[in-house]
Amino acid sequence: MCKINFCISALLILAGCQTPEPQKPDAAAFFSKGKWIDLSYEFSNQTLYWPTATTTFRLDTNFNGRTEAGYYYSAYSFCSPEHGGTHLDAPVHFAEGRMSVDALTIEQLCGNAVVIDVSAKALANSDYQVSIADIESWEKEHKTIPDSSIVLFRTGFGAYYPDAARYFGTNAKGPAALDQLHFPGLHPDAATWLVNNRKIKAAGLDTPSIDYGQSKDFRTHQVLMGNNIPAFENVANIQALPASGIYIMALPMKIKGGSGGPLRIAAWIPAS
Amino acid sequence: MCKINFCISALLILAGCQTPEPQKPDAAAFFSKGKWIDLSYEFSNQTLYWPTATTTFRLDTNFNGRTEAGYYYSAYSFCSPEHGGTHLDAPVHFAEGRMSVDALTIEQLCGNAVVIDVSAKALANSDYQVSIADIESWEKEHKTIPDSSIVLFRTGFGAYYPDAARYFGTNAKGPAALDQLHFPGLHPDAATWLVNNRKIKAAGLDTPSIDYGQSKDFRTHQVLMGNNIPAFENVANIQALPASGIYIMALPMKIKGGSGGPLRIAAWIPAS
Repeated sequence: MCKINFCISALLILAGCQTPEPQKPDAAAFFSKGKWIDLSYEFSNQTLYWPTATTTFRLDTNFNGRTEAGYYYSAYSFCSPEHGGTHLDAPVHFAEGRMSVDALTIEQLCGNAVVIDVSAKALANSDYQVSIADIESWEKEHKTIPDSSIVLFRTGFGAYYPDAARYFGTNAKGPAALDQLHFPGLHPDAATWLVNNRKIKAAGLDTPSIDYGQSKDFRTHQVLMGNNIPAFENVANIQALPASGIYIMALPMKIKGGSGGPLRIAAWIPAS
Repeated sequence: MCKINFCISALLILAGCQTPEPQKPDAAAFFSKGKWIDLSYEFSNQTLYWPTATTTFRLDTNFNGRTEAGYYYSAYSFCSPEHGGTHLDAPVHFAEGRMSVDALTIEQLCGNAVVIDVSAKALANSDYQVSIADIESWEKEHKTIPDSSIVLFRTGFGAYYPDAARYFGTNAKGPAALDQLHFPGLHPDAATWLVNNRKIKAAGLDTPSIDYGQSKDFRTHQVLMGNNIPAFENVANIQALPASGIYIMALPMKIKGGSGGPLRIAAWIPAS
């Protein structure tokens, strides 16, 4: 087989053809060959927060109606803990001195992604933790996780949101609820393996926490965040994504010094 | 000139070369040929809100330190009016029954963008309003604004943020401050012209409001939002953008029924 580029150029010159003009990069044209899927839940009074949260999402009406000047106008104010609904955990959430949410760059938050589906195991066992073997098995079937990937895990628990009893494993609130949390997560050993063997930008999943519900030490958080890898939690619609060929935009609210915050995340998938 | 594709294929066949395999679409590879610029201000106690806002951004510490279990942990809660800092105005902000922020699609919020620079006029006159002539002049110099563009206006006022006295034209707060607002905006006639003559996805600028400071009827808001066109306000770093060839990602917090909300917005520009 000859060297294609040289071959084309040489033959075109011989044939008297002109080479095409270089196209200007056109991102909208690129993305028109596929579609966007919103991976974010709405913030509302249905939004799920950690059982020990003392507040949840609140929307207050500042004005809604006709003004004295005659035009219609509506505006609201809101309050929320950083870690609820579809949100990002910044490294400083579990790693002292590491990056806060505003320090994460657009470059780190957006990129090609892979989806590792463990839903068959996790739906059968709500204490399931994604293992090194699960990642190796995905790589065997597909490819080595490319450098700079965002890695999403599909546990199937997204189907339960916002039913707290099924999604968290309990409807209970307060410290006493913590022992009753049953939902899948990423095993600390698998997080360590990813940190040591692959170069990932971020990790995300369709459960309330990157550590499984029964975790007491949040070691997966500590491993990822100690390596400046943020986590995306309560990610919606992961079941709509293929295993690879995806582009993720994950843009959190830019809270100065924040340990995390509301995340608007979307995936582009190529037309099949 | 011969038909290039046919020419290449025919010559490759003659020469016994194999044609290259079709490339899978690779968004990260596409974007690697340029860079991302964050167009969002941080939310902090410096964040600017409308002078009549009765609350501003507040961050409360839920926990920051070493837990009883021995690991480090930090988490906060926050409150904010929807319309402050870098934010989005959803159509329902000024148009009854129109789309709330959660109803805007990713497709509408992201796209190719153009930047219309009126900073020479606006910095000389803080009551300046972008005119139809400004848009026509831009088009004469560059090209017709393509369908599905996001249109950004550069007034130069971004350089004053977060100095309220210079950015708003006044440090005053409360209803009495409104007569003292002096900053540039988009003239309602120009907004009407855009709605009637071009197909734009959204409009944005580097001032607190798409209507200029002295507006009493917010007619530009009414015109855009009555046509389901959202506005991006307090957009940062517009001065770093070229006039075209840009891709914008603008992802607001997904507040159910919200009239707007915090916006994380970034621009990709091709390497020069």
